[in-house]
Parts: sequence; C-alpha cells; structure tokens
Amino acid sequence: MMTDAAKGGEIGMDGVTPAEASPEPDLLCIYGTGDLGRSLGQRLLQTGYRVVYGSRRPRSCGPLPRGAQVLSHAAAAQSAGLVFICVHREHYNFLENLAPHLQGKVLVDLSNNLKKDIYPEANAEYLQRLVPGAAVVKGLNTLSAWALLNGPLAGRQVYLCGDGAGAKQAVAEVATRLGLGVLDRGSLSAARELEDFPLQLFPEWRLPLRLAVGLTAFFFFYLLVRDVVYAYVEEGRDLSYRITVSLANKLFPTVSLILLALCYLPGILAAILQLYRGTKYRRFPDWLDRWMLCRKQLGLLALGFAFLHVVYSLIIPIRYSAKHRLISRVVDELKDNKSTPFDFDNTRAWGTDSFYMLGILGFFLFILLGLTSLPSVGGMLSWREFTFIQSKLGYLTLLICTSHGYVYGWNKFLRPSVYKWWTPPAYMLCLVVPSVVLVLKLLLLLPCVDHRLTRIRQGWERTGTRAEKDENIATHF
Amino acid sequence: MMTDAAKGGEIGMDGVTPAEASPEPDLLCIYGTGDLGRSLGQRLLQTGYRVVYGSRRPRSCGPLPRGAQVLSHAAAAQSAGLVFICVHREHYNFLENLAPHLQGKVLVDLSNNLKKDIYPEANAEYLQRLVPGAAVVKGLNTLSAWALLNGPLAGRQVYLCGDGAGAKQAVAEVATRLGLGVLDRGSLSAARELEDFPLQLFPEWRLPLRLAVGLTAFFFFYLLVRDVVYAYVEEGRDLSYRITVSLANKLFPTVSLILLALCYLPGILAAILQLYRGTKYRRFPDWLDRWMLCRKQLGLLALGFAFLHVVYSLIIPIRYSAKHRLISRVVDELKDNKSTPFDFDNTRAWGTDSFYMLGILGFFLFILLGLTSLPSVGGMLSWREFTFIQSKLGYLTLLICTSHGYVYGWNKFLRPSVYKWWTPPAYMLCLVVPSVVLVLKLLLLLPCVDHRLTRIRQGWERTGTRAEKDENIATHF
Amino acid sequence: MMTDAAKGGEIGMDGVTPAEASPEPDLLCIYGTGDLGRSLGQRLLQTGYRVVYGSRRPRSCGPLPRGAQVLSHAAAAQSAGLVFICVHREHYNFLENLAPHLQGKVLVDLSNNLKKDIYPEANAEYLQRLVPGAAVVKGLNTLSAWALLNGPLAGRQVYLCGDGAGAKQAVAEVATRLGLGVLDRGSLSAARELEDFPLQLFPEWRLPLRLAVGLTAFFFFYLLVRDVVYAYVEEGRDLSYRITVSLANKLFPTVSLILLALCYLPGILAAILQLYRGTKYRRFPDWLDRWMLCRKQLGLLALGFAFLHVVYSLIIPIRYSAKHRLISRVVDELKDNKSTPFDFDNTRAWGTDSFYMLGILGFFLFILLGLTSLPSVGGMLSWREFTFIQSKLGYLTLLICTSHGYVYGWNKFLRPSVYKWWTPPAYMLCLVVPSVVLVLKLLLLLPCVDHRLTRIRQGWERTGTRAEKDENIATHF
Repeated sequence: MMTDAAKGGEIGMDGVTPAEASPEPDLLCIYGTGDLGRSLGQRLLQTGYRVVYGSRRPRSCGPLPRGAQVLSHAAAAQSAGLVFICVHREHYNFLENLAPHLQGKVLVDLSNNLKKDIYPEANAEYLQRLVPGAAVVKGLNTLSAWALLNGPLAGRQVYLCGDGAGAKQAVAEVATRLGLGVLDRGSLSAARELEDFPLQLFPEWRLPLRLAVGLTAFFFFYLLVRDVVYAYVEEGRDLSYRITVSLANKLFPTVSLILLALCYLPGILAAILQLYRGTKYRRFPDWLDRWMLCRKQLGLLALGFAFLHVVYSLIIPIRYSAKHRLISRVVDELKDNKSTPFDFDNTRAWGTDSFYMLGILGFFLFILLGLTSLPSVGGMLSWREFTFIQSKLGYLTLLICTSHGYVYGWNKFLRPSVYKWWTPPAYMLCLVVPSVVLVLKLLLLLPCVDHRLTRIRQGWERTGTRAEKDENIATHF
Repeated sequence: MMTDAAKGGEIGMDGVTPAEASPEPDLLCIYGTGDLGRSLGQRLLQTGYRVVYGSRRPRSCGPLPRGAQVLSHAAAAQSAGLVFICVHREHYNFLENLAPHLQGKVLVDLSNNLKKDIYPEANAEYLQRLVPGAAVVKGLNTLSAWALLNGPLAGRQVYLCGDGAGAKQAVAEVATRLGLGVLDRGSLSAARELEDFPLQLFPEWRLPLRLAVGLTAFFFFYLLVRDVVYAYVEEGRDLSYRITVSLANKLFPTVSLILLALCYLPGILAAILQLYRGTKYRRFPDWLDRWMLCRKQLGLLALGFAFLHVVYSLIIPIRYSAKHRLISRVVDELKDNKSTPFDFDNTRAWGTDSFYMLGILGFFLFILLGLTSLPSVGGMLSWREFTFIQSKLGYLTLLICTSHGYVYGWNKFLRPSVYKWWTPPAYMLCLVVPSVVLVLKLLLLLPCVDHRLTRIRQGWERTGTRAEKDENIATHF
Repeated sequence: MMTDAAKGGEIGMDGVTPAEASPEPDLLCIYGTGDLGRSLGQRLLQTGYRVVYGSRRPRSCGPLPRGAQVLSHAAAAQSAGLVFICVHREHYNFLENLAPHLQGKVLVDLSNNLKKDIYPEANAEYLQRLVPGAAVVKGLNTLSAWALLNGPLAGRQVYLCGDGAGAKQAVAEVATRLGLGVLDRGSLSAARELEDFPLQLFPEWRLPLRLAVGLTAFFFFYLLVRDVVYAYVEEGRDLSYRITVSLANKLFPTVSLILLALCYLPGILAAILQLYRGTKYRRFPDWLDRWMLCRKQLGLLALGFAFLHVVYSLIIPIRYSAKHRLISRVVDELKDNKSTPFDFDNTRAWGTDSFYMLGILGFFLFILLGLTSLPSVGGMLSWREFTFIQSKLGYLTLLICTSHGYVYGWNKFLRPSVYKWWTPPAYMLCLVVPSVVLVLKLLLLLPCVDHRLTRIRQGWERTGTRAEKDENIATHF
C-alpha cells in the first residue's frame, strides 16, 4: 500500500499528470457498525483508504460514513486482506462460521473488556482460536471511538502484538498513516497486557498515594491528640472546631514537606549505593527502583498538599475564630489601660515576615517544578535544562521549604510547654527527613565525593586488577 | 519520492555503500517568496527535498533559504510536478497566463483570507478555474510561516481537499514527511471550509460563553436589586460601593455552581433518554448533542468563575469596609462594657470553618479536573482513568461545592429577613440545578437502574419480539 | 527497508496470506551496550527492526534486550549497513582499527559531551576522521536513554546532519519509523551545533531574565532607600523588617508591570517602523528581532512576578505588623472618644474596592494568557484565536493592570509628602512604560493608521514610481 502511494507521488513528481492517474487506494474491511466501527471507518476514509463494512444484514445496518461500502461478512472478508474486528467479545462466536472466508487474512482485534480478568484467555487469543487460519493482531485498543472521530491522532502511541511479523507490519503501516506511533509488544501472548491498558487506574500513583494517605492518617491522629484531646483532657476546653481548619493546616504542610523530601531521598540513596559499589553497572534493589520511578508522583502529591496549605493559610483572617481572637485581644489591651497601645516587636516582625517570605518563595518554586512536569512543557526542555530544574531547582525548593519550617519553629524548640504529653509538635517531626536529605546532599556535593560520582556515572569502575578493569570497560562498548 | 527514499535506505541496509549512492531528492516548486514561501522552502529543504522558487524576476527576489534555486515561473513549473502557491489570492491572475505550463501539475493552495465570505468562491476553487488543467489541492493552510520556521510540526494535524486522489496523495506524502498528520476532507468543494479554519474564533466556546454571560447578567441585576437598590429604597443607605467586590463575590460562585451543574446535567438527561428508549442506538436530539459537546468548555468556565470567587474571598480582610466593620464592632463591644469581651460560639466556629473547608476542597478538586482537561495531560490517561476523573471526581466536586453552598445558607433558609421584597437570595437559586443533578445521579446509581443502563450501553436493546431483537443485534455487527 | 514493509502490507491488502509471508525486517547494528545502547536497541526491536550489537567480548556483555544478537565489532559491522555509535567519545579510538570493516557504512554518532567546548572538534567530525571511508551522520543525540525506553517518541523532533545525502536519508527513515520528526541541519560541520543542543540552558530566557534581574535590583535599592533608609535617616525609625514583605510586595508588581509592557512594546515599534518604511519587506534591526523573539518569556516572567505579588498581598492581614497597626488604630480611635466609632468613607470604599477588582481581573486575564502559552494549549488554537488572545486579550490585560496602578496612585500623585528626597514613588515610575505603550497602541488603532498598516502587512508597499512599484510586487511572487 505504501508502494501505491509512492507511485502516486512519483508520478506527480516527475511532471506526469497526477490528476489523471488516480491509483485505487487500499481497501480495508471493518466488522461491526457500532460507535467504534463507524469512527474507525470515518477516519480511515479521511486518511485515504477505501472502507468496506461487513454486516449480517448489509441492507439495514444504520448510518455509516459516507463513501463506505457495506457487504455481507463473507463478501467483505473476500474483498480485503485486513479486517478490523469492532465487535464486543460476547458476539465473537459468529466469526467461527466465517473461518473459511478469513483464511490467511489479518484480523485486528480492537476489543476491550469492562473489567480485568473476567475471561480465562485474552480476547485476541480467543479470536485466534476461533479463526486459526487467520493472523490475529491485537492492537489500537487504546483508541476510543471519540478520539478516532475528533482528536488529532498524530503523536499518540499505540501498541501491537501478534504472532505474524508480516501481519503486524501491515497493521503498523495503517497505524502509521493514521499518524500514530506504533510499538510492537511481541507475540500474541502479550494481548492480555494490551487489553488491560485501557483498564489501568493510575498504577504509577498507587505507591505514592498509599504513602500520602498513611502519612496523612498518622499525623491527623497525632495532631488530634495534641491539639484537641489534650486541651479537653487537661484543660476541659472543647477545641473540636479546630479540626476542619487549624488542624488541617498543620497536617497539610507536614505531609507535603515529608513527601517532597521523600522525592529526593531515593536519588541520594542511589548515589550512595553507586559510590559504595564503585560502579553504575549493577542494578539497584527493587524497592529503590520502584521508589525512583514514582518520584514525579510524590512531588506532585507534595505540591497538592502545599497548595491546600497555602489556601488554608490565606483564609485564616476571614475565620470567625481568628476575628474573635483579634477582637478579644484589643479589648484585653484596652482593659489593661496601657499608655501606649502595645509595643511593636521588631524581631517578631522580622521573624514572621521571613517565615511568610520563605513560604511564598518555596510555593512559587514548587509550582515551577510542577509546571515542568507537564508533558508538553517538560518535553521541550533539553537534557541540561531538565536536570537543572529537577535537581538544582528541586533542592532549592526543598531547602527553602525546610527553612520555612525551621523559622516557624523559631524559638519554640527549647520551650518545654510545646512538648505536650512528652510529644514533639508535628512540625518538628516533619523536619527530620528533609534535614537528613539536605545534609546528605551537601556531603555528596563535596568536591572529592562529587568528582568520584561523576566518574562512576560516566562509566568508570573501581576494580581490583588492571586486567579486570579492562574487562569491565570492554563489556560496555 | 518514497521509492527513492526507500532505495536509499535499502542500499544502506544491504551493506552497499550508501555514502556513494546519493539519490537525488525530489524537487518541489514554490511560487511566492514572501514569509510563507520562504519558511515553507526552508522547512522542505531541511526535510530533505530540493526546492525551486518560481519568481517573475528571478534575479531580484530578495533573500531565499540557502540551497534553493530560483527560476522564472514557467521554468520552475516545468522542473517540478508539485507547486506550492504561497501568493495572496489578489495576485492569482498571473497564474492564468501560466496555465499551459501548469498542465497536469499538482497545485497546492495554501492561501488564507483576512475575513470570512469576502469572495464568492473559495480561493482554491478560483485557482482551479484559472488553471483548469492542473489538479488543485487545498491544504496546509493552517500552518503559519512562523510555525513552519520554528515549531516542531511533528504531531500537528493538517487538512487536505481536492478532486484528484493521486494529487492529494502526493501532497499527503510531503506533509507526512514533514511530520504532519493528514486528514482528507474530500473534494475541492470543501475548500471553503478549510479556508475558514484559521479564521475560526472559538466556535465551541460560543454556546457556553453565551450561557455564562446570560447567567452573569441575570444574577448581576438580581443581586443589584437585592443588595444595593433595596437598601437605598427601603433604608436610604448608599451601598453602591458593594458592586465591585461584595456583589461580584456573590455573583461568581452563583454562576460557577450553576455552570458546573449544567456540565453534568446533559449526561444525566442522555442516560434517562437511553433508559426510556431502551437502546443506545438512536440519536440524541440535536440540542442535547450540542450540549454534550460543550461540557468541557462549561466546566472550564465554571472553573474560571470559581477562581475569581476564591481570590475575591481571600482579599476580603484587606478591604477598607471589612476593616471598618471590624473596628466598629470592637468599639461597639467596648461601649456595651460587657465583662467578658464577647462569647465564643462553638457552633458558629464549626459552621464557618466547615464552610471554608468545603470551599477549599471543592476548589482543589476543581483544579484537578481542569488540569486533566489540558490536552497533554488528558492525552496520557487511559480510558478508565479519564472516566474516573471526569465522572467520579467530577460528581464529587459538584457534591462538595453544593454542600459549600448549603452550609453557607446554614440557618438562613427559614429566616424571613433574607427574603427581601419576597425574593430568595441568589445562593438559594443557584442550589436548585446542582441539587436536581445530584438527586438524579443518585437515582441512576440505584443498582437496578445502573445495571440496566450498563447493559444498554453495552449494546443490549429492549425490544418486543425475539425476531426483532435478533434484527437489532444483527444490525450492529 | 520501506520497500520490504510496503511489500508486507501490499500482500496483506491483496488478500494473499500475510501470515505466511514474513519478510525479514531490516537489520541495524549498535556499538555500545550501556544504557543508551540498550534503550535504543529495545526501541528498534519494538518498532520492528532486527538488532545486532557489536561488542569487544560478545560473550560477556551483560543483559541485552530480548531478540537482539551480539557479535564482535567486525562481524556486527559486516552484517548491517547502519551502525549506531552509542559509546562515549573517549573510547572512540577502537573504531580506528575497525575502519576497514566500516568502509561504506553509515555511522550514526549519538554522543554528547558533559560540557561545551572541551574538545577542539565535534565528536562526529572526530569520528569521521577516524573512519574516513564511512558516512558519518550526527543526530538523535537529543534523545535520552530514558526517553527511548519509556516515553512516547511520536511527535518529538530530532536533528540530523552529515555530508552524504543518502546516508542521512537512511537514518531519517529509521527515525521516522520511530515516530520522530526529522530536521536536516545540513553538512557535518553543523555537528558541533547539534552536540550543543542537549547542553543548552534556557538560551531564549537569558535576555528576559537579565532584564528582570536588572529591574529587580534597581527597584530593590530604590525602594530600600525610600522606604527604609529614609525613615532611618530622617525619622530615626527602624523599619528594616519591611524588606521581606512590604518592600517585596512593591517590588514585584512594579517589575511585573514593566515586563508586561516591554512584552508589547516591540510589536508597536515594529509597526511604527513598517509605517515609516512603507513596507514589510525590509528586515528589522537585530535588537528588535531579538526582542520580538523573547516576548513570550518576558510575558511569563511578568506573570511570575504578578503571581508573587498576589500571594504577598493576600498574606497582608495575617502579618504581625498588619495586626499591630489595626489594633493600634482601634485603641487610638477609642482614646479619642468619638461618639460614632469612625466615619465610613464611601469614596474610599469605592476606590479601594475598584483597586482590588482591577487587580483580580488583571491577574485572571494574565493567567489565561499564560495558559495559552502552554505548548499543548497554544497548539490547538487557530491563527485568529491565537492573534485574538495574544493581542486583544494581551492589551486588555495591560490596560487593566495599568489602571490598577493608577487607581493605587489615586489621590497621591499631587501630594508632596510622597516625594521623599525628591524621588517619585516606584509605582509612578512603573506606570511610564505601560502608559506609553497604551497610548502608542491607541494611535495605531486610529482608522487611517490601522488601514495603512493592514495594507502594508498584506504586501503593499509605498514606492515612488509606478514601475518601481511593479518591481516591488513582482519580487514577492
């Protein structure tokens, strides 16, 4: 089919009249006239193919795209070499009877299921069993009818698998002409995996989400005990109203800072491991690999919590309790009948303002980090730009946010009254991981350590004998 | 031209010296040496084509991309089979004289107009009339000179139309090699439509914008009467200063919540219609189809209004009138000379804080919804992820935002003083649509209803006789 | 290789059994079994190629993608026509000995360096010198091992350069089948440029960043003198705490507004230049060209500063000093023992509320502008939509933000006390550029000027004689 196209082009190019030479475009067959079948046919027609639908009752099969033919299943199969199966798996049985007509054809199975593991074998494998003489290719099933009809397909990636190389090649050609990027996932035994793709529900978010939920739950109860239960038990005051805002506004920054630190910790552990092993050519342990792969999600979750913290902080002055405290304070002030209303504490002004400044700058950098993790923005960055943002800017963000926490602590670290029931406040706990990360990073930045690490990452290996070293280098080129 | 390329590749692959065999790349012709002509030529040269410009005065036509030839119009046409016309329509008349030289060539019309409907026929149809012997193809006109020069074209979609299949194929080959996705829109009579593409001004935003403007206008006057006119007429107070902030901050959440609910209503109506009809194979009425298609825009507009509402709410405490009210209140408090300044109302603290919490969480989820509607983010989601976010998360957002409104109402629903001039406050009005949507959704989630709907959406149909049912199923595969 | 593929497709299309005909896919060779080599091999295998690795010790070279062969360097070179060199430049010397085996092969140099200018010649030129009989093509070096393994390549753009057209064509074919868009950058002498691509660090941000830093530094010291030093010198008060928040919150809007105006100024200067010259066909001076090219970055920086300004403004009421001022004021108020607490100034309420409203609306529009500059959003806009947003909406944003500044000034323009040490406040200074831009834009919108400009931009030229004019038009088509 490329050859036809090429011929058409060639003729035009050589100055021979292309308007007269209209090469017949390739004919593709579609079984199924539902949403998917119709959208696919429409798109194939627009891309320059001819399309024939196979239908049990060709005369009454509802509206089809303009320009498409409709034939019986058998006749449609006869006319084309490639058949797209746009039918639900439950109705596949009719294909068994058509097997003789489908002998030697390429059958593209686009079907998906509503849930995982409801059938013992993949739809495509079932299809292959029904029509053993055909070459079944599983693929394109990540495209929805909607995307086929409306979206720009160009630049999207689809997956194929199947046992016949030629059959896969034929399908890949069609997909390429639709503008799709094609990845071959191997033999038909990968069909199940492909059928599970559209049913995935944020698999790479699972670990980070569990971590976030765990941390949130722990700190929620920790803060509940310290801020509400303690006051109730020890002082008999009901501060339960604090749960919705005050407590949440301690919870979010705590979890956010820990998640951000956990986002940079695996990189540091990997560096330490490489330094210890003296090579980059040994695989990391599985847990570290998985941790490394979800850093982006950890960072985005941290950003979410930071965002909530920012909005929660900004509404403080509108709150009833904040207004109440302010007014009570004025009245108290007046009751005491001081000559000057009350003293302006310059140190305190510096402290609180620096605290806010660090918070705002940290949040600003955090948002920049988040923006570059948008696929369309990140995809435009050069290698060095990406490295710069994700490491330099990332560590700067962590540093500023950690300082924000330290300035919040300020002069409370040594005040015994904050250690209610002998527990440290949550903000102290949440400073532990970031501080460790920052100190370790600082150690890794020491010239002697940094130099060694750079050499290791360029392929150098610490080995015993000269011969062994030669061997080692040799293995990598 | 593909054949040449293929040959080049083939030679290299077989181990024969490709460096020696330099197949002559295809030659394309460009008429017009303005911005567009130059950018297109540059890009074609970079993609591996040879380019010849046709110019009336080949010797004095300004700077052209390095590597391009310049010939007279006639000579240039002679040398290539494909001619890109990068000239304004007003200057097309010179092509009439060249008609003999353009016999049998493919002419690609890339022209655009400054406004719609200024000429009786499309530019490409006019061109075809001038040069009847050539095969005119309209297309690529959505690419600007700037995009051709700078942008990555890969992944962008362009449209073609024309009467000759071979001619279209030749142009599609070039476009594909430029990395563009190509969609064929049929015969040359579609040229007008293609020429209108670059002149479109947010067509899919028109309906949602009109709705938003209508709602905004209605509620503006409604609020103006209740909040400003009422006080002036009944109490003689001038509260006109409230228009800029207080009134706007009632207006925005009202419109936002209604728009959000309107974004989910059509889906519910469609489900009810499918349940009533007992099939998914009948088309929805036109108004419902159009409504369904602009849900994304409705949602984004609602997000915009919600964003304004959030910022407006956050600046409340900086406002002069808010400060004034606070100070007056303290002074009043002191004047009354109570022993305790004023009582802390625990219920009120709970109420207002829950109100803020719901607002913040709703806004947070709203932003998540908005982020996934970014093409680059949404494009990476699997079908199930997209469904999860747009329906589950969407309804959760609507639920939380509606609760935010109910908690705002709180204990005012039964207080007669809020019904000024017998009108209910705006926030009560805006709760109607979301409440209806949520109740209907709840009904649709009842197991018996949900089960039936799922079956219908999988292709099941409620029919009278067994025969009729067979027929029905048959028509869809 | 395309031909093979096409054959496979063709057979399938004609109804002949494609499952039986499995054409042998093309064989590509990779030298280097590090991260890059392995990722590239994996991807090539998935795209349907066969892959053979060249290794010095084929038997002990670590884990390779399933399906790949490993041979000695010489044998691997023999078997394929195209060799990807995935080895660090430092190890290239082994290739010199292989030169006889690489005679006539296409060598693709994917190498990058860690820094710019550490070697006198480009890696690819060095490679060509070592293996003079091969056709070296530099390219694909902007793809990382990570992107090759995980990312969707479709839609990404890569660059090639080399001296042999056939060799480049062969590499371009492979890249195209990987879904990449390919741009030819000419002969091998462009290799250095290509090798510098991954080492670029925001080149287009440099000018705008310098400008922003310069403006920030200037206004920081200006404000420091006026707000802190002045109070210390003249009144002996220590207001240094203001640096972190108050001063920053004057600094950010000032710089933001100037940057936004500078983003629209070059367009106006270009229009004036075109009007003055009477043609659009003469190149702008270099400085104007460079300025035009960084407008997007200027706008985004302005948005960043505006964002900081908004958050800084919103935290005002939580600040210690703001609370202190409020409480002092109440106490003062009470001390004076007025009968009514204090008067409500309607004009002032209008003024401040309008000020906030303009700020919020300006920020909202600013964010809309920022969103459309996201590649994935902007790429979906038609030419007219893009123009509408970037010019109409842009100027509206500038107008609203400038008004925000004027309303801030309000009645202070004529108050002598604001001119400390004879200097005007920063907000007056920052209104100069935007006001000039807006006035010039208004002049350009006058019908007579606008009409002339539109004609010039459509290609019309003001010339002396009729003949000359003909000449002029002629040169552009």
